[in-house]
Amino acid sequence: MKTPLQTFWFNANDNTYYVLDQRALPHEVISMPLKSISDVIYAIEEMVVRGAPLIGITAAVGMLLIMQKTSLENAPAVIERTYSRLLATRPTAINLKWALDEMRSLLLENPSIGTAKKTLMEIIQLETDAFRQIASHGMELIRQKQLHLAQPVQILTHCNAGWLACIKYGTALAPIYRAHEEGIPVHVWIDETRPLNQGARLTAWELKERGIPHTLIVDNAGGHLMQKGLIDFVFVGADRVSKNGDVANKIGTYLKALAAVDNQVPFYVVFPSSTFDWEIENGMTEIPIEERNAYEVTHVCGWDGKKTCVRIAPEDTPVANPAFDITPAKLITGLLTEKGVFPATSNGIQKMYPEKF
Amino acid sequence: MKTPLQTFWFNANDNTYYVLDQRALPHEVISMPLKSISDVIYAIEEMVVRGAPLIGITAAVGMLLIMQKTSLENAPAVIERTYSRLLATRPTAINLKWALDEMRSLLLENPSIGTAKKTLMEIIQLETDAFRQIASHGMELIRQKQLHLAQPVQILTHCNAGWLACIKYGTALAPIYRAHEEGIPVHVWIDETRPLNQGARLTAWELKERGIPHTLIVDNAGGHLMQKGLIDFVFVGADRVSKNGDVANKIGTYLKALAAVDNQVPFYVVFPSSTFDWEIENGMTEIPIEERNAYEVTHVCGWDGKKTCVRIAPEDTPVANPAFDITPAKLITGLLTEKGVFPATSNGIQKMYPEKF
Repeated sequence: MKTPLQTFWFNANDNTYYVLDQRALPHEVISMPLKSISDVIYAIEEMVVRGAPLIGITAAVGMLLIMQKTSLENAPAVIERTYSRLLATRPTAINLKWALDEMRSLLLENPSIGTAKKTLMEIIQLETDAFRQIASHGMELIRQKQLHLAQPVQILTHCNAGWLACIKYGTALAPIYRAHEEGIPVHVWIDETRPLNQGARLTAWELKERGIPHTLIVDNAGGHLMQKGLIDFVFVGADRVSKNGDVANKIGTYLKALAAVDNQVPFYVVFPSSTFDWEIENGMTEIPIEERNAYEVTHVCGWDGKKTCVRIAPEDTPVANPAFDITPAKLITGLLTEKGVFPATSNGIQKMYPEKF
Repeated sequence: MKTPLQTFWFNANDNTYYVLDQRALPHEVISMPLKSISDVIYAIEEMVVRGAPLIGITAAVGMLLIMQKTSLENAPAVIERTYSRLLATRPTAINLKWALDEMRSLLLENPSIGTAKKTLMEIIQLETDAFRQIASHGMELIRQKQLHLAQPVQILTHCNAGWLACIKYGTALAPIYRAHEEGIPVHVWIDETRPLNQGARLTAWELKERGIPHTLIVDNAGGHLMQKGLIDFVFVGADRVSKNGDVANKIGTYLKALAAVDNQVPFYVVFPSSTFDWEIENGMTEIPIEERNAYEVTHVCGWDGKKTCVRIAPEDTPVANPAFDITPAKLITGLLTEKGVFPATSNGIQKMYPEKF
């Protein structure tokens, strides 16, 4: 079977869910079947799939798979155990918890394969609708800017918040795709996003596939571009947003937000509502930051005729590898969800989501 | 001949200057002879040698080599031509111009091999003395901080400003080496410094060789560490400093300065006086920024049994690769040269260097 260009799909021939193995991109397009809960845990922990929304959906598949092997009498215990096991795979992205909470509560009410399938489909539908609405709201920002420019709108993005991080469209990239479809000229500056180079590997690949003009830079270069007046917007995704508007996103996001403020470049964080953590008031102090392994820093994986990983540091160099950082709300121009654009403040969020306050 | 652990040396056996090939570090310790002006140009352009002070010294060797092959009557024209050719090798580091100016003016007065040798030795002596004095002034900053700490002083550095960038001691790392010698506990956080990973390759190697505790991080992580209160100082080198205190240094320095200000972490720029460009008032607008080739961004070179370069982006991805950025003076806590520590302001600089104003 040729791997389709989707992050996630169901193959009716073998009755199995598959995911695109994003570790192999852009060099190889290969897939991984999700046949068991272990496959799902492996796919999330080893970043076969990544991106907050896609992690949530993949975890929901894990709950479905376990339901297919569980008797009715064991269901409540198995649901709880699987929930905890999946929740522990990655600590920062909250969409994981959101999707698992949805699955868990509906399955405890009605523990059946049917419920699991229906809930998975509802989660996918909800998220996909959100991505489409995000695209539309964000496109308007780009369109307004373009009215005042004689050249393409210049957008800097960090990591990958495109369709590879989601199911369709994307978050931070969705408005860009939509603007491109509408004939609004855009150009994207892509941070390579060390350590795992999701920008260089995934965002560059997505944009190339869609024919959207782009330029790759190292993570160090974004501030310099803003100083030179070369950036009109920064659009980034999010892994968790607290009630005060602090944003956990891929490590390095905070540095770009600082540069955006210093150079009066609008900085927008783009995500579906499932990325809000309604239980956290203060993101800076309360969002846990995942620490990943040293190998990601001491080695860089790429292509040299075949997939090859090279060591860039002396052997046994001590490493710290925080995978996310917190961008404080004060640095953010606006939050952009399926509901629209609003300030990154408690008040701004409360106006959009009064039921959560 | 085993390559000695120096950046630069004269081998009396073959009457030749050699440089350590820093492209091969930390994986291999190999040298390159400087037999001709072409060797010198190659060594600077291809970054066999790098670091503003060492670039200056290597260029001075170029002037000496050309004098060894030039008749007295041709000397003025050859000196001027060689000066221009060497000056064009790298546009941002001003020590190159400083060393070449020294050589040029003395050689035009007295065009002889003797003058060239003597001037080269004087340049080396002047710079080495500066590095030693820098070490002493900077160590005092570290010592004062340590009095208030129950743990090692935590210093973040970007790129490599150690002895590999110089001849001995270093600039930003010199105070750290000196503090370590004095028994003051220090720990260094090393930015890997994409695209060429001078932090991961060179700074990690230098500090390991000297037994100084250190931790490697990706360039994206420094802001997060400062938010968490894990950094006491940022020490960086410089490639050119203008009369108003703006600093050109390795791309990404500016982002760390922004994070330092946001988190009240003292940010010092450490360099010999030869790094001042006394002809430039405003670094932000007047210092030229070198743009290097796309390969440095699309590929990462490291070790996989042998030196190996892997492609990390899709084929033919468009790239921008500015090699330096400008940190505006307003973000800098202090400049540290062989004369001491002083504010990054026109006034602060004028007080230390009244003869230049």
